[in-house]
Amino acid sequence: MSGTLYGLGVGPGDPELLTLKAHRLLCAVGVVAYPAPDSGESFARAIVADYIPEGAREIPIVIPMRVERFPAQDVYDAAAETIAAALEAGEDVVVLCEGDPFFYGSFMYLFSRLAERFPTEIVPGVSSLGAVTAVARQPLIAREEVLTVVPATLEEAELEKHLRDANAAAIMKIGRHFERTRAVLERLGMAERAVFVSHASLPQQVVCPLAEAPEKAPYFSMILVPGRDAHV
Amino acid sequence: MSGTLYGLGVGPGDPELLTLKAHRLLCAVGVVAYPAPDSGESFARAIVADYIPEGAREIPIVIPMRVERFPAQDVYDAAAETIAAALEAGEDVVVLCEGDPFFYGSFMYLFSRLAERFPTEIVPGVSSLGAVTAVARQPLIAREEVLTVVPATLEEAELEKHLRDANAAAIMKIGRHFERTRAVLERLGMAERAVFVSHASLPQQVVCPLAEAPEKAPYFSMILVPGRDAHV
Ligand SMILES: C[S@@+](CC[C@H](N)C(=O)[O-])C[C@H]1O[C@@H](n2cnc3c(N)ncnc32)[C@H](O)[C@@H]1O
Ligand SMILES: C[S@@+](CC[C@H](N)C(=O)[O-])C[C@H]1O[C@@H](n2cnc3c(N)ncnc32)[C@H](O)[C@@H]1O
Repeated sequence: MSGTLYGLGVGPGDPELLTLKAHRLLCAVGVVAYPAPDSGESFARAIVADYIPEGAREIPIVIPMRVERFPAQDVYDAAAETIAAALEAGEDVVVLCEGDPFFYGSFMYLFSRLAERFPTEIVPGVSSLGAVTAVARQPLIAREEVLTVVPATLEEAELEKHLRDANAAAIMKIGRHFERTRAVLERLGMAERAVFVSHASLPQQVVCPLAEAPEKAPYFSMILVPGRDAHV
Repeated sequence: MSGTLYGLGVGPGDPELLTLKAHRLLCAVGVVAYPAPDSGESFARAIVADYIPEGAREIPIVIPMRVERFPAQDVYDAAAETIAAALEAGEDVVVLCEGDPFFYGSFMYLFSRLAERFPTEIVPGVSSLGAVTAVARQPLIAREEVLTVVPATLEEAELEKHLRDANAAAIMKIGRHFERTRAVLERLGMAERAVFVSHASLPQQVVCPLAEAPEKAPYFSMILVPGRDAHV
């Protein structure tokens, strides 16, 4: 009998925002895999460091930071094979996913490689969207408003096109695309009601109007443009 | 000293999808408020029924089912006053919110009435979007795709306009708007890759291709249109 693969949402950063289910599964597991940068700590692992059982085997999935074109197919191929070997040996494997596994998460690259070969369960988690709206104290959408979620990595014209038609928007993966994103929002007259949030739910969290945002935005930051009905 | 108001996300239905934080706060609280239909059970309350402390005071916020035009201002005015009285007496009040509090939730109507008068904290929860993608085993968006979240309550032309430009979409509040929504998706050639999910994470959950969906959709159902990059 093979083991089960779990795509485990660990939430946006605060370890207490893990679900009871993710906590139960994690505390009992023997093999834990997670995405990790080639230098420095894995964010997903750091969130749940206190819950990982002593003696659990760890499989870091190292994504070279300079790889621009995702998915890094070779890395996921190799990680999938390492995980498959553990599953074949009858061990359950938990893959830690920051936020919610299927909300722009990299878990999909393992899922597409393994879910047909092994029993697989996805455990949803609190997404960055929920955490960011909570700490911004700002409902995003009300009544019949439409929410548009866009990655800031889009080309400028595409970004502008999608934001122009949006009632409310959440812009993800800000990082080094910050200036461009801000310029688009200013052109569209959306900058004034926009809110900047980085590291939501963590001690180093920053929440402020876009106009007061720090000059450099970290990767873990988001810009919210609340809908007009929801704006408080 | 007044009490603290908590907008507490209780997740999409499975009581184990509550966060550790929501669980801790709920188990210790003296006053619990929640939206309730005028007949039948409150969904948010049912999710956490086992965690509500014995002897806690309960404040059901009864939203008449036939009220078409939300927000039902008078109901929220009255509920806010009842909650304010408890907060003024120094009691903490937890408001149960299905899914995530600020993801199309009605908590915003209490938030806008109370957050300036009392210490208020929003505890994010697993949203229906996370639960639905998890049980559909379907990543929604990959790479640079844009996600559009629309309420099916929109007028047909508006619905069509927003869906036409979408890479990936989640359509909420299906219920009695099911036929119209399905017709729009068929016209746009999106019906074939669409997935229907109702009551995600609950025992009565239904997950199927849109073409095989039951004739009547309950209120707690969603249609996903995965992006082409994410489609597995
Ligand atoms: C690859 S996506 C993964 C999202 C994750 N699966 C989720 O459900 O939130 C990474 C992006 O999520 C956003 N993000 C994640 N955690 C965040 C946090 N704690 N505060 C602000 N933004 C966050 C940032 O926009 C970041 O660039
Ligand atoms: C008023 S919105 C509230 C959403 C909630 N705040 C959240 O974060 O999921 C209600 C809509 O959420 C969706 N929904 C909520 N729970 C669901 C579930 N368990 N399965 C499928 N859809 C659900 C349905 O589309 C429903 O009409």
